[in-house]
Amino acid sequence: MDFAPDATTRDITARVRDFLVDEVLPAEPVLAAQVAATPEDWSFRPVVRHLQATAKERGLWNLFLPPGGAGSGGPATGRGGGLTNLQYAPVAELTGYSPRLAPVALNCAAPDTGNMELLAHFATPEQRERWLDPLLEGTQRSAFCMTEPAVASSDAMNIATRIVRDGDEYVVTGRKWFATGAMNPDCGLLVVMGKTDPGAPRHRQQSMVLVPRDTPGVTLLRGLTVLGYDDRDHGGHAEIVFDDVRVPASALLGGEGEGFAMAQARLGPGRIHHCMRALGTAERALDLVRERAAERVAFGGPLADQGVVREWVATSRIEIEALRLLVLKTAWLMDTVGNKAAMTEIQAIKIAVPRAVGQILDRAVQVFGAAGVSGDHPLAELLAGVRTLRLADGPDEVHLASLGRAELRRRAPYLARVVHQPSTVEGDPT
Amino acid sequence: MDFAPDATTRDITARVRDFLVDEVLPAEPVLAAQVAATPEDWSFRPVVRHLQATAKERGLWNLFLPPGGAGSGGPATGRGGGLTNLQYAPVAELTGYSPRLAPVALNCAAPDTGNMELLAHFATPEQRERWLDPLLEGTQRSAFCMTEPAVASSDAMNIATRIVRDGDEYVVTGRKWFATGAMNPDCGLLVVMGKTDPGAPRHRQQSMVLVPRDTPGVTLLRGLTVLGYDDRDHGGHAEIVFDDVRVPASALLGGEGEGFAMAQARLGPGRIHHCMRALGTAERALDLVRERAAERVAFGGPLADQGVVREWVATSRIEIEALRLLVLKTAWLMDTVGNKAAMTEIQAIKIAVPRAVGQILDRAVQVFGAAGVSGDHPLAELLAGVRTLRLADGPDEVHLASLGRAELRRRAPYLARVVHQPSTVEGDPT
Amino acid sequence: MDFAPDATTRDITARVRDFLVDEVLPAEPVLAAQVAATPEDWSFRPVVRHLQATAKERGLWNLFLPPGGAGSGGPATGRGGGLTNLQYAPVAELTGYSPRLAPVALNCAAPDTGNMELLAHFATPEQRERWLDPLLEGTQRSAFCMTEPAVASSDAMNIATRIVRDGDEYVVTGRKWFATGAMNPDCGLLVVMGKTDPGAPRHRQQSMVLVPRDTPGVTLLRGLTVLGYDDRDHGGHAEIVFDDVRVPASALLGGEGEGFAMAQARLGPGRIHHCMRALGTAERALDLVRERAAERVAFGGPLADQGVVREWVATSRIEIEALRLLVLKTAWLMDTVGNKAAMTEIQAIKIAVPRAVGQILDRAVQVFGAAGVSGDHPLAELLAGVRTLRLADGPDEVHLASLGRAELRRRAPYLARVVHQPSTVEGDPT
Amino acid sequence: MDFAPDATTRDITARVRDFLVDEVLPAEPVLAAQVAATPEDWSFRPVVRHLQATAKERGLWNLFLPPGGAGSGGPATGRGGGLTNLQYAPVAELTGYSPRLAPVALNCAAPDTGNMELLAHFATPEQRERWLDPLLEGTQRSAFCMTEPAVASSDAMNIATRIVRDGDEYVVTGRKWFATGAMNPDCGLLVVMGKTDPGAPRHRQQSMVLVPRDTPGVTLLRGLTVLGYDDRDHGGHAEIVFDDVRVPASALLGGEGEGFAMAQARLGPGRIHHCMRALGTAERALDLVRERAAERVAFGGPLADQGVVREWVATSRIEIEALRLLVLKTAWLMDTVGNKAAMTEIQAIKIAVPRAVGQILDRAVQVFGAAGVSGDHPLAELLAGVRTLRLADGPDEVHLASLGRAELRRRAPYLARVVHQPSTVEGDPT
Repeated sequence: MDFAPDATTRDITARVRDFLVDEVLPAEPVLAAQVAATPEDWSFRPVVRHLQATAKERGLWNLFLPPGGAGSGGPATGRGGGLTNLQYAPVAELTGYSPRLAPVALNCAAPDTGNMELLAHFATPEQRERWLDPLLEGTQRSAFCMTEPAVASSDAMNIATRIVRDGDEYVVTGRKWFATGAMNPDCGLLVVMGKTDPGAPRHRQQSMVLVPRDTPGVTLLRGLTVLGYDDRDHGGHAEIVFDDVRVPASALLGGEGEGFAMAQARLGPGRIHHCMRALGTAERALDLVRERAAERVAFGGPLADQGVVREWVATSRIEIEALRLLVLKTAWLMDTVGNKAAMTEIQAIKIAVPRAVGQILDRAVQVFGAAGVSGDHPLAELLAGVRTLRLADGPDEVHLASLGRAELRRRAPYLARVVHQPSTVEGDPT
Repeated sequence: MDFAPDATTRDITARVRDFLVDEVLPAEPVLAAQVAATPEDWSFRPVVRHLQATAKERGLWNLFLPPGGAGSGGPATGRGGGLTNLQYAPVAELTGYSPRLAPVALNCAAPDTGNMELLAHFATPEQRERWLDPLLEGTQRSAFCMTEPAVASSDAMNIATRIVRDGDEYVVTGRKWFATGAMNPDCGLLVVMGKTDPGAPRHRQQSMVLVPRDTPGVTLLRGLTVLGYDDRDHGGHAEIVFDDVRVPASALLGGEGEGFAMAQARLGPGRIHHCMRALGTAERALDLVRERAAERVAFGGPLADQGVVREWVATSRIEIEALRLLVLKTAWLMDTVGNKAAMTEIQAIKIAVPRAVGQILDRAVQVFGAAGVSGDHPLAELLAGVRTLRLADGPDEVHLASLGRAELRRRAPYLARVVHQPSTVEGDPT
Repeated sequence: MDFAPDATTRDITARVRDFLVDEVLPAEPVLAAQVAATPEDWSFRPVVRHLQATAKERGLWNLFLPPGGAGSGGPATGRGGGLTNLQYAPVAELTGYSPRLAPVALNCAAPDTGNMELLAHFATPEQRERWLDPLLEGTQRSAFCMTEPAVASSDAMNIATRIVRDGDEYVVTGRKWFATGAMNPDCGLLVVMGKTDPGAPRHRQQSMVLVPRDTPGVTLLRGLTVLGYDDRDHGGHAEIVFDDVRVPASALLGGEGEGFAMAQARLGPGRIHHCMRALGTAERALDLVRERAAERVAFGGPLADQGVVREWVATSRIEIEALRLLVLKTAWLMDTVGNKAAMTEIQAIKIAVPRAVGQILDRAVQVFGAAGVSGDHPLAELLAGVRTLRLADGPDEVHLASLGRAELRRRAPYLARVVHQPSTVEGDPT
Repeated sequence: MDFAPDATTRDITARVRDFLVDEVLPAEPVLAAQVAATPEDWSFRPVVRHLQATAKERGLWNLFLPPGGAGSGGPATGRGGGLTNLQYAPVAELTGYSPRLAPVALNCAAPDTGNMELLAHFATPEQRERWLDPLLEGTQRSAFCMTEPAVASSDAMNIATRIVRDGDEYVVTGRKWFATGAMNPDCGLLVVMGKTDPGAPRHRQQSMVLVPRDTPGVTLLRGLTVLGYDDRDHGGHAEIVFDDVRVPASALLGGEGEGFAMAQARLGPGRIHHCMRALGTAERALDLVRERAAERVAFGGPLADQGVVREWVATSRIEIEALRLLVLKTAWLMDTVGNKAAMTEIQAIKIAVPRAVGQILDRAVQVFGAAGVSGDHPLAELLAGVRTLRLADGPDEVHLASLGRAELRRRAPYLARVVHQPSTVEGDPT
């Protein structure tokens, strides 16, 4: 449980920090201008491609990939960034300081990261060659199609999309939405979750197939907005109809019935990445507040002299410090005992971090006044993004209920656990 | 302190309700389609104009105007809707059920309402004829230019815009933003607050002038976004530069040095209208939640069976009921003792209602899952609107500090007040 | 829905206020001294009896009793205080300003008030003569025995105490606790709830019997503490064993199977009285804070100059104002449509008022520092009392769930309700 | 920043855990009975002395003392427990599971721990021999006299007690209160803070003297209650008058003018100990809730099946996990960079832990219903204790303002700090 940055972490953190200072932050207004100039476009703007090229040159590419590929114990790809979750944590946090640009610049943006991990873990060599390599290169993008408009998809039992075997093919029928990145013309791959066997046990009904976006029967209906933002520069969030979409049987990812387990495996790292980045976003908010409160004067003094601003800033700092440690511990657990054993902690940060960072951003908006809700400062967009995290991968309440149920079912009281399991809240020995 | 609806209120409420059911709610998807078809347009869409015509026919027009024009004790215009604040409260609440359409359909939308009240109270007959009549008719729109990008405008001392007398003219120089409605081509009038005498006592430095939008030197720089929304269908929120803008001396509203007092007079009714509408918005959210929770199934039953959803709905209901009564009391005080004496209550609802309704909407979004942040349900946009109210007319914190200071300065303890002043928390007799 | 105090209310409020100022507040330190001098005693101290005599002389006695006895539609006793709930509200609020002394001084303290209402409503003439008259006179006290240590008594189905008919007698067997006032030597009557027919429908299993405290088989085990206080001066909170306790059949209150319904009827007024008093307690806290914040100096100025104190005071004021109106509306509904129709509002205030007042007191304690938790200021004891209200008559959560369920089950949306039922949130017409 | 328990920690934790299970928990009802039997007594009850003897035998004594005595860099006493703060953290947390007995059983209870640290650091050899040795042996107790009833003592400038040099003596005059433990007949030493030079710079005016409790002029006025509890079994909380109290000049602790600095040095470890214990208290609450929720049935099922209970338990678990890590980091910082450099973290946990644990206990009380506020379960007393922590060593708000001010004054933004200072939020290099 040593969270101190080692030499590798210090080195990579410093380099990513320099990249942010030198390249990413100056690129923020450039991106805004390029988006304003091409409002109809769903593809990466030139500044993004430039940043990606620069990051690659600087060796800051695919840092999210754990050693040996993806996830502890995962198969070696020889292509991973080689960072443990604990080493990656401060890197991801840094990218959250400029979340529209930095993650994608480093090829570390959702949903591609999750999809690459999925492929690294579960894909056949042929599937990897066709789909994983271009994703790792950054020459292609991908989307993950799980959420459905017609049902509460946080309950995997509700998935209505069908994946039916028909001879040498699978036939996919259903409707998905909030497929992030799917509107990007570079998006070639749709990872689709559906039911292959509705009669199987609860968590063995689902499977995943790899569907080329240009397959006949795939219709991108529209890009959705998220709290008013269409995130067009990232490829948006698509609603997609799958109407009798046929893919060869070799497009199945993993085995039939393994869809739920693979989704869980995918979501663990995804959630911690979201949380790491959210902490960087919170630091951005605090930096903005610090500057604003120093220079803005009202009622006889700078805002920094107001008791309420002080209390807000102190509260924000405390929350960041406590939650960062919980994120680091989660990363360390994932590295040492695996994603499954870190389940409680992953749920805990998934719930706690977006809530706290949302509050931190909300208070920052109040300090900024009207400017805070405008597009001139990043706060409004950051707020929308973090608010959405409270729903991403299932509403918080699903995770709260699950975590609470597990906690209530423990058989060992504190005194039985305290000695033997200092490192995790899970896994009663009794 | 009788809050029961009288015959007039019952009648008008029923008619506005019918109008909502018959006309406004069906028009919501029409507006969405018309906006999608003309994404570059800042003017009212045809469906809005149609609703306005229908409302006029039904005698549902300018209902916001108190008897005798605007505000208790105001000058008679003969054009008012004739409703007291208390009578208007349920009407305004109803319009908040569909806040993008209903207020404007009834010619009861900010900022025109506030501007009409200003003009009814303080304008000369010539000013009224030129500006108030077309606003009352709905043939023209107006904007209110107070907030400035460069300073914390919640402190009126900070206003940097200058209004300098030069012979028979006033010369306006400065920069304003968040001038709601100003991008609408129908907007003819800008009510501009600035300083005429920076050396005068604190609250006598400011004045207001009536500036035609097409005056040379007026530049509409851009429409701003508010939490991602440009509110284009309402004329947006403009940033405006006033560069040596010359208007005749007769364009002064009220007297020199009366700007601050007029702004205060304007904001009181404006705040209560916002709060009334926000309660209707909260009722909309609860209706949406009720439907969704009944039909949406997860983990073995409808969402309505989940304890957390029940607790949210109960909490929301309690908050609405308590705050509605406080809004009604505020309206009643404004009607009976005037806006100034109702100051504490106006501040109280300005602070409490947007906070509570924001929470109600936030919980509703969680119940809806991804759909809640999408543009397919009204929740995301409603949330953005209510969030902004926590900054409109000054951040909550300014009002909290002011209300707290007043409360701490009272000399009479509860036992001295309780008998003599059951109707207001203000105005210590000692 | 007219909440303004009428002439009767103004008169009685003024007289109760004067009584508080002249008699009750000066008696607070006297009570403290008398309790300190007789720490083992569970009976009323002399100062309480003196205050009661004075109140009677002043005609301030039994004010809680509605016209015609108890509850709308109740039988005439000719002994009521003659105040409606709405008229009584400010009186009860005043007594909450000094809650250890004022309610009991006016013979308006729980649990006697609830028991007197029960008797006025449901007792036979013989029962009234024996039990109600001395309670109304204040010559005897009573206790209400519902809560049981062994079960979650908020679910009436769980009641384990048995009341078994045996010839001309009922035999009571069971264990009760938190029987407030039962340790007082003046307590003659125990109103006991138990099951007469465990096989009957859910809410017809329970009955009530009137048990003289000195009946053989009744054992007062001990006085319980409530958050550290034994409330000894009020007769404490007793744990009582009923071991084969025999009372004549005529001791049955109402009919067999009517226990649940009578308990509900009793609790409605009880809850609103608690809430009214809690608001007076909140006003006491604010008065104390105002004084303290003015005189206490830290870090260069009085506490009143600190932004956080201002924000607290403002927040407290807003909550009091909103919740007072909701309490008044509830009282008005109880007066006009009856306790049952006011069910939602009764639940709403039962939940919201103790929560808010608890927060108000908690913040007041912070302003007072160490003195706030000491026994030198009333805050610590007030905090304990209000905290307990969140459990009295069932935990808040039971009421939240019930209110939420009802709200989710409404069939009529807002627009169907708004015109026809402005006065209550309950009772959908559909 | 390695928080994993080392071999020493695992060993000592296991032994303290066994001591809790074998001795302390069974002693809880014994203590209750002994206190009930001798309600007037302020001294340790026999069961406490027995536990102390047993702990000593088991080698579980004075564990709070860091290696080399007290505090990193402190003078060697040869008598310390030899544990670093990080090693002591889980031990202290365990003692919080039974906070009335475990800390005192191990001679690790406030205020003696703080006083022993003070003496170990700053006392002369003669002072140590006279005062520190018996404290380390547990044959005598001590009290710390800082808080004063007449002023806001969280601002050290307000201290009114005077310590005036008069020849070979110091003369102490003033009034202190909340001197915890001072009513215990075993208490021999009062460490008194007062002003020696009111004209010196702000933080050089104060000094400390060691006053034997039986010195003429020392009057113990009374034992105070804290939220209703007099903590009599621990020696209570005394109000003490110092009237012309004379001690020899050799009774000065440290130098003149060093009182403030010594108080700060004392409070750092004191605060972290409070926080560590509070986390153990929270674990106790969760264990109690788990048991109760499993066995208690209402409305058709165990409480554990209710969504709200699940959400509470999950929230509590998350808060405990995050805050424990922050406490561990604080301990680690104190061990590695010293108490002063850990100032921000000490403030952070001082604010955050009691708040969170207070909420955890408050929710636990709701789960327990009436039993939760009674004396039959430990929750009510634990709640009072943790509530008091929000005021101990100054109200939270003082620390929030201080932390917020420091945060707002940082010059280095996140990107300048992130690389060089991963381990602390303090100490900008710029």
